[in-house]
Amino acid sequence: MSNLHPAGPLPAPKTQRGERTRQKILDAAEREIGARGFSDASIATITAEAAVAQGTFYLYFRSKEEVLRELVLRMGRRLRHHLTLATAGAGDRMQAERLGIRAFLQFVRDNPNLYRVVAESQFVDPAIHRAYYEEFAAGYRVGLEEAESRGEIAPGHAEVRAWALMGVTDMVGRRYAIYDRDGPLDAAAEAAYDFVAHGIGPRAAGRGAKT
Amino acid sequence: MSNLHPAGPLPAPKTQRGERTRQKILDAAEREIGARGFSDASIATITAEAAVAQGTFYLYFRSKEEVLRELVLRMGRRLRHHLTLATAGAGDRMQAERLGIRAFLQFVRDNPNLYRVVAESQFVDPAIHRAYYEEFAAGYRVGLEEAESRGEIAPGHAEVRAWALMGVTDMVGRRYAIYDRDGPLDAAAEAAYDFVAHGIGPRAAGRGAKT
Repeated sequence: MSNLHPAGPLPAPKTQRGERTRQKILDAAEREIGARGFSDASIATITAEAAVAQGTFYLYFRSKEEVLRELVLRMGRRLRHHLTLATAGAGDRMQAERLGIRAFLQFVRDNPNLYRVVAESQFVDPAIHRAYYEEFAAGYRVGLEEAESRGEIAPGHAEVRAWALMGVTDMVGRRYAIYDRDGPLDAAAEAAYDFVAHGIGPRAAGRGAKT
Repeated sequence: MSNLHPAGPLPAPKTQRGERTRQKILDAAEREIGARGFSDASIATITAEAAVAQGTFYLYFRSKEEVLRELVLRMGRRLRHHLTLATAGAGDRMQAERLGIRAFLQFVRDNPNLYRVVAESQFVDPAIHRAYYEEFAAGYRVGLEEAESRGEIAPGHAEVRAWALMGVTDMVGRRYAIYDRDGPLDAAAEAAYDFVAHGIGPRAAGRGAKT
């Protein structure tokens, strides 16, 4: 386990061909680390899977740790992009939450290796793992504050809510998209949305139970 | 990483002295694995910390993996015991949730090593990690179903809610009890309870916002 950050990633490849090679190495590393775990995954297997010479690895990455860090960033970028697309048509924040929860479960189902790599990164590089969650939470918090100011959600503690919401999707995702690889996701997503929208407390008479 | 379960744990020590030695080894392993991580933690350091001969380790445990499994079980037992005590005086389910959230945050703050050991176990023995969460969820689900039948919570999907509730405390715990080692916990616990009780959706006019 290393807490040390090296001088930063190597410079980005100058050619399209170089960038393609770098992505091939990352794809192979995602499969290999996701399937076998960080400590069992070897650079030799990653380069063999990527069909490049072992020395080529070091043109793009200093170490296996640096590949892991890049995969965590990749997960963040892809997930944000996926959620942005999925919630683009939402008319308000609650509708965005509903669409976002469903889209998150699908993303985890479709990217179990990335999910695992992010989880394992906390034991390889705690700082990058923490940054992953803190960046997500920061964006979430801003969105919640804006929604509150527009009256789209009830007033509340945006920071706690941001982490709570990440916890809901993280754990429901674990249960329904990782442990259960094949079951339908719609009912779980809808129930998770109901939880997020209304909580579990008894509801006042006459209040619409579901939106 | 090993998915193989050995024949099961060694038989429990027959004497009180033996049981004390076994617990000393587990205490040292909790500190050592919690601080340095599973792969860097060594049996030599664990036995030195426990002030027992290295060979003594093998009277009680077959391997470092077996110690990790026992620590996950220890975390489950201690957390359940802690939550049972903390919620014993609750008059209904929502009050139990409120007390339970506060108690969980305190437990994580007081036991960062156990929290880390459980998280890391998913990469050492995925089955024990999954069992840890599934057992908690099963107990949670039963409690929610009973509370629903008594009218103490709104009707809903008990299985999804169980995992969502674990996610809330897990992630709020990470933010306020692990990343933030010293800050006050009461406000975060209260905000998490508000989230669990009411969600974030806009609240109908005339409905009490907080219980």
